[in-house]
Amino acid sequence: MPVETINWKNGKIRYIDQTLLPHKVRFVDCSNVRKLWRAIRCLEIRGAPAIGIAGALGAALIAAKSKARSSRALVREVENGVKYLASSRPTAVNLFWALSRMVCLARSNSSLPVRDLKDLLIGEAMEIIDEDKASCRAMARHGAKFVKSGDAILTHCNAGGLATADYGTALGVLFEAKKQGKRIKVYADETRPLLQGARLTAWELLNEGIDTTLICDNMAASLMAKGKIDKIFVGADRIASNGDAANKIGTYGLAVLAKYHKVPFYVVAPLSTFDFDIKTGRDIPIEERPGDEVRSIMGKMIAPPNVKVYNPAFDVTPRRLITAIITEKGVYKKLSTK
Amino acid sequence: MPVETINWKNGKIRYIDQTLLPHKVRFVDCSNVRKLWRAIRCLEIRGAPAIGIAGALGAALIAAKSKARSSRALVREVENGVKYLASSRPTAVNLFWALSRMVCLARSNSSLPVRDLKDLLIGEAMEIIDEDKASCRAMARHGAKFVKSGDAILTHCNAGGLATADYGTALGVLFEAKKQGKRIKVYADETRPLLQGARLTAWELLNEGIDTTLICDNMAASLMAKGKIDKIFVGADRIASNGDAANKIGTYGLAVLAKYHKVPFYVVAPLSTFDFDIKTGRDIPIEERPGDEVRSIMGKMIAPPNVKVYNPAFDVTPRRLITAIITEKGVYKKLSTK
Repeated sequence: MPVETINWKNGKIRYIDQTLLPHKVRFVDCSNVRKLWRAIRCLEIRGAPAIGIAGALGAALIAAKSKARSSRALVREVENGVKYLASSRPTAVNLFWALSRMVCLARSNSSLPVRDLKDLLIGEAMEIIDEDKASCRAMARHGAKFVKSGDAILTHCNAGGLATADYGTALGVLFEAKKQGKRIKVYADETRPLLQGARLTAWELLNEGIDTTLICDNMAASLMAKGKIDKIFVGADRIASNGDAANKIGTYGLAVLAKYHKVPFYVVAPLSTFDFDIKTGRDIPIEERPGDEVRSIMGKMIAPPNVKVYNPAFDVTPRRLITAIITEKGVYKKLSTK
Repeated sequence: MPVETINWKNGKIRYIDQTLLPHKVRFVDCSNVRKLWRAIRCLEIRGAPAIGIAGALGAALIAAKSKARSSRALVREVENGVKYLASSRPTAVNLFWALSRMVCLARSNSSLPVRDLKDLLIGEAMEIIDEDKASCRAMARHGAKFVKSGDAILTHCNAGGLATADYGTALGVLFEAKKQGKRIKVYADETRPLLQGARLTAWELLNEGIDTTLICDNMAASLMAKGKIDKIFVGADRIASNGDAANKIGTYGLAVLAKYHKVPFYVVAPLSTFDFDIKTGRDIPIEERPGDEVRSIMGKMIAPPNVKVYNPAFDVTPRRLITAIITEKGVYKKLSTK
């Protein structure tokens, strides 16, 4: 059973604070858009689909709490709140997709009574959650076809239940393969700087009884050289029209290593992760995060405090290095090599 | 000025405890071979040439402290101590090279009076230190020819003053280039799990006033894709007869990435790092270290305590991925490209 990362409970947003995992599973009730913004910014809520859901729930929260007496005023409040939430993180397009879906719905229903418009927006956020659940299951079914019994699979960062409304994108595929009775062994990259692989992916995989081995990011190449990795599955934060995919920093390097070692490299992401407004990965804005995320780990300094740091949160894997992109609607295979 | 990582002081071995850097520079006086074994094992002393020196000084220490009344008994003590020290870490061949040099010298001078044999062994350890200093300077001169003003250089782990008796192998090249007035910018991989790049390399580079940027290991590929890395310089722990080089885990992956991005990849190591008894990198024993080095960082757990871990300390870069091996005697360039 996947954990419920984020949902709507008694007029508030209830989410798991992912920064405390795997040591503590703490649910936070959030009824404040500023707090939600910070939760996204600080990765208490993370994972592209989950961030999208957080955005949709944020818009619903603004509507639910609004004291607006006209629907036009309510729409304006939602527009402003959505603009604010959109400034929390720049790369995962699911956030903008969900926010713009909420705003469009509000605008095109501004003639409804305030009460009805509020219900409509809350209902839409719930609909987005339901769609994400269905997407996860569909991606998992499509993806599991690529997994054979006996496979050793590498994954990077966390593309699991914590990143979605259900059991994940890349990890969903693995959970589904296991459910189908396939024996798999999973290597999880720890994923510096914020260690989503060590903290979240390892935790989720162990919870599902999957044979899991944690490695440092720089150990993957050595495993590939030894023929110990059969396939790689990762998620994505934004996919350009041409199939270039932004995902957690380190993904691109893995894809190059996969090509060199002839290991199939799969990206698993719902269609809400596609950005058809941009042509290639060059147009994807890459978030740079504070240097102290690298200089320190869990509050402990690991480097000279005055050293400069380069800390991009994502990198872009060109389409030519991706064996297939697995979505809820089907699988896009590589058309040409190079 | 390089720090003095390890030396002989008043009949004891004085070394910097590298596990405390960069926060504390603590010198430890060691007059006990068990303590020295632990210091090597736990990376208080680390870096292939420095481990070699530690081995030589260990043999000298055994001799200096010996109560043997015959030289034959002294030789036996040295033999036993050396065997014990050889069990501290398996990969860096400099340790075995230095230990066997000390034992051979002891054996072939077993006819000397005890006092003279002791002095001879202590003198030999000092000689090994002096040779390493001269090697560092010679490697640096040879290597600096490959550095141009304006270069951005990536390095992995620590191949600096802390790893040698002087200012290092790979880092020695950079220090020399700077002394020659070349403007360089250095990216230091943090080097999980034990963070030698973040803790030691960043500290050494900043001490020498070099423009230094710390990155997580998984960020190097993204920098290469952006054309931001001109060259890579790393050290080595053991080089096979065919030129395959074992170095800190993550080096092989960098070499593959360098090939893909057409970035020259240099290994800098003294001849004492070569193992002419083995043909290829396949014969190099790779140390696997405790899982808790990955599960925790600076004493803080970062993963579920029950997750399995794969923690090899080194990987092997095949000769074909190395642009040149820079030694104190000259430079071995790549003869053929794949």
